[in-house]
Amino acid sequence: MPSIAYVNGKFSPIVDAVVSVEDRGFQLGDGIYEVLRTYGGRLHAVEPHMRRLFRSLDAIELKHTFTAAGLEQIIREAVRRAAFADSLVYLQITRGATKRTKEFPTDVPPTLVITVRKLELPSAATRVQGVAIQTAQDIRWQRCDIKTVCLLPNVLASQRAKAAGCFEALFVEKDSTVNECASANIFIVTAGVVATPPLSTRILGGITRDEVVALALKNNLPMQERRVTLDELLAADEVFMTGTTVEVLPVVKVNDRVIATGKPGPATKRLHKLFCEQAG
Amino acid sequence: MPSIAYVNGKFSPIVDAVVSVEDRGFQLGDGIYEVLRTYGGRLHAVEPHMRRLFRSLDAIELKHTFTAAGLEQIIREAVRRAAFADSLVYLQITRGATKRTKEFPTDVPPTLVITVRKLELPSAATRVQGVAIQTAQDIRWQRCDIKTVCLLPNVLASQRAKAAGCFEALFVEKDSTVNECASANIFIVTAGVVATPPLSTRILGGITRDEVVALALKNNLPMQERRVTLDELLAADEVFMTGTTVEVLPVVKVNDRVIATGKPGPATKRLHKLFCEQAG
Repeated sequence: MPSIAYVNGKFSPIVDAVVSVEDRGFQLGDGIYEVLRTYGGRLHAVEPHMRRLFRSLDAIELKHTFTAAGLEQIIREAVRRAAFADSLVYLQITRGATKRTKEFPTDVPPTLVITVRKLELPSAATRVQGVAIQTAQDIRWQRCDIKTVCLLPNVLASQRAKAAGCFEALFVEKDSTVNECASANIFIVTAGVVATPPLSTRILGGITRDEVVALALKNNLPMQERRVTLDELLAADEVFMTGTTVEVLPVVKVNDRVIATGKPGPATKRLHKLFCEQAG
Repeated sequence: MPSIAYVNGKFSPIVDAVVSVEDRGFQLGDGIYEVLRTYGGRLHAVEPHMRRLFRSLDAIELKHTFTAAGLEQIIREAVRRAAFADSLVYLQITRGATKRTKEFPTDVPPTLVITVRKLELPSAATRVQGVAIQTAQDIRWQRCDIKTVCLLPNVLASQRAKAAGCFEALFVEKDSTVNECASANIFIVTAGVVATPPLSTRILGGITRDEVVALALKNNLPMQERRVTLDELLAADEVFMTGTTVEVLPVVKVNDRVIATGKPGPATKRLHKLFCEQAG
């Protein structure tokens, strides 16, 4: 069975996996999600993903009886059934299916959906050449630290970036504060110092982001979590993004502006190498 | 057949109506919706609802081949099959079901879901006594004028309001600008002048809102569409909300503050009477 879905206790091919039209995930965006991957069949960073998942559930006050061990067991079973070397695991929990009301329903069990697909990675050429990204005004809500499925602003920004031939969109505040990409966190390197925006309600605390910050510190690379402005980013020696599937991916162009020499820089390459040694 | 659903060409009981777990409405909040009602079996304000629906589709750049006449025909058939005197019609369109990507998929048809349920109205006592509402900081995204299913901020605010014994939540900016309720628009009456916040990207242009503004003008009630502050609202002679199911509903308490005498006022009652004469 190639691509696997799990919905409330039942495994099936993804094509057969359905939820009610009155699921609160479908009608109200009332749910949260996680994306994990495997390296050679082995799940990566399960523990921090589970910690973030439960943090999201708490943040939206979703009542449940899930445990990290229980969810992990289902994920492992889905990965085993799908049997890809490298799997992309998508997990979503919503506040269940019932007659539509804005307030929380009572006595409705949450919906748990897991899908496992073959992981698609950026091509080797993309990684060697680096990617272009496009800035987008950050018009999202004020709790971007919660990993909710209300992703329409990210969808629209991503589409505009792709339509402009770019790999990703970068959310920037009106005051030029750089926040994060639509599906990844952002880092800059200036005069040997690595910097990334600090955790706040304007960014989603990426698992790969945290791993890269820790790797930089462990390997004596000067590392700062602080406000980054768009001007600083455009003038940086290196720019890269981090995320579960992109890992550490060089950014060589932002809008029409080439970053430094237009080639992936040494700190980016070193951090990606360190990341792969640890993950793979 | 009591409650009816229609999904991509097929009618069924709601309980049998499903969408793919990979529908972009479920995974990404990538969709828009409308809510209509009937009066004695007759659909109310179909034309403005359709106009707003197509405006929402345009705003999120959702490619489709729907026409107002085509959608109206399906709605009428669903209402006919459900056969309630007063129906609540929910219509949702998403960017279809396919392998999850943030950017728009190509060659994927949209998903169209319509449900018809028996309309539940505020009780007569609620209408006579008026309701209490609770303010909530407006942390929503910057395009609240689009009727999208990314409603988690509205869900959370509504739940907190209900938990505090209130009927609705009222979104207020940090600078004390009043925007709208989680599911309705807001009006105040001060010294005989009716006022409501102007259309902007911070509010959803309600169909009932527009009807009430037009009714006030037509009946020579002084009517202003302008910025309203929370202080003004708390000191107003009357406060009411408007929406498809609440129609014109008096608000007599905001947080712990009683509005004027704590009783529905004459302008509110008059506008509700005028609205019912026109609608019913």
